[in-house]
Amino acid sequence: MQRYKCTVEYDGRPYHGWQYQDDVISVQKVFEAALEKLVKTFVRVHVSGRTDAGVHALGQVVHFDLEKVYPAEAVMNALNHYLQPAPVAVISAEMVDQDFHARFGSKKRYYMYRIINRRQPLTFEAGLAWGVYKSLDIPAMNEAAQHLIGTFDFTSFRATECQANSPIKTLERLEVVAGEGHEIRIYAESRSFLHHQVRNMVGTLVLVGKGSWQPLDVKTALEAKRRSAGGPTAPADGLYFVRVEY
Amino acid sequence: MQRYKCTVEYDGRPYHGWQYQDDVISVQKVFEAALEKLVKTFVRVHVSGRTDAGVHALGQVVHFDLEKVYPAEAVMNALNHYLQPAPVAVISAEMVDQDFHARFGSKKRYYMYRIINRRQPLTFEAGLAWGVYKSLDIPAMNEAAQHLIGTFDFTSFRATECQANSPIKTLERLEVVAGEGHEIRIYAESRSFLHHQVRNMVGTLVLVGKGSWQPLDVKTALEAKRRSAGGPTAPADGLYFVRVEY
Repeated sequence: MQRYKCTVEYDGRPYHGWQYQDDVISVQKVFEAALEKLVKTFVRVHVSGRTDAGVHALGQVVHFDLEKVYPAEAVMNALNHYLQPAPVAVISAEMVDQDFHARFGSKKRYYMYRIINRRQPLTFEAGLAWGVYKSLDIPAMNEAAQHLIGTFDFTSFRATECQANSPIKTLERLEVVAGEGHEIRIYAESRSFLHHQVRNMVGTLVLVGKGSWQPLDVKTALEAKRRSAGGPTAPADGLYFVRVEY
Repeated sequence: MQRYKCTVEYDGRPYHGWQYQDDVISVQKVFEAALEKLVKTFVRVHVSGRTDAGVHALGQVVHFDLEKVYPAEAVMNALNHYLQPAPVAVISAEMVDQDFHARFGSKKRYYMYRIINRRQPLTFEAGLAWGVYKSLDIPAMNEAAQHLIGTFDFTSFRATECQANSPIKTLERLEVVAGEGHEIRIYAESRSFLHHQVRNMVGTLVLVGKGSWQPLDVKTALEAKRRSAGGPTAPADGLYFVRVEY
């Protein structure tokens, strides 16, 4: 039995998220089908972060065990072959010890959120970014973001259906920066996130960017510890699971 | 009668090129349909550069005449409304004099060609770049490109069905540069190009990048003035019509 770790990139647009569900297409279903073509038997794939419908990944991490030992590069190439034409690709693969676990071993997760701030509808970026038409104040958004850095009860930014045991998380980075052209990027880093936490924080920061909220209102929302005190959930389109540290 | 100039962005993937054709979808058909919804009558749209099937535009330029005078910004917003959900957007619009002509007034056209040079199949960039798996030598490609700059008979890089009167063109820039990550960008500038000229030059430069050709072989190919002496046609996927100068 050999355990493999793969770093995976996917365009989330066609998928109902990572997790396997009957009757709909998910990244896990596509990935496990490719793996089954390689080893001729079903193999369960474990993921670092289950992404929601429409959320993308640049560096998702998965692990799985194979009975037969193949070189890691051969696993990558074969999976990429069988994944075609799905917009899912294995970027790297390596053999790891049995004590490696994609989910439970994750020490830090990196997310990025992309906003295209322009009046024209999106073309190339449709489904790959949130198109916000009203001009956003980036410095105000970034100032607001700093109120969320630290260890807090993030109930105000937690989906009501979130299954985490505790609403307390340590947010290590939340930075709003101007990107190329009309793009705004928001970077978020934490050991783990609550369900919809990044999207709920982004939706709230956009209220600040539009001038509807002041930066300090975000601190007030956080302290209220009520989901209704936070801003709306930003669309899945702009969210990217970027990287995991073990 | 008021003439309008619009700068237009489009994702070429769903289209059989710019030009109107019966029975298939083209950017011109989609654009003229949106314009007809605005003014309730058919209006012919003239373009700077007719792009082929699958070719993209970041700054295509069109002009058309309207009987009724609308503010330029209202024309842009209305067209963007009626164009939805097509991946075509008007980036800017302005009123121009009757002597402005999108095609005949073009003094310089700018193209960009995107290659993603990696072993993994493309995900986000599928159809938006040429995925080349073998590692390319960028300095050698750029050295080869310099042999094509100047005024020459470009028959070796001209599609056999090209309808231009003369194969002589003046290429002002052809530069191969490393982009972000695994991306390679090739920038081409000329008053005008022969049919498939950019794609044929790119296909030839990739032969140099792979080491199949030496940079000087490109000069030999140019001087042969035979299409069969040039390299293959690069796919439409990576080609972008970037900008026009008037």
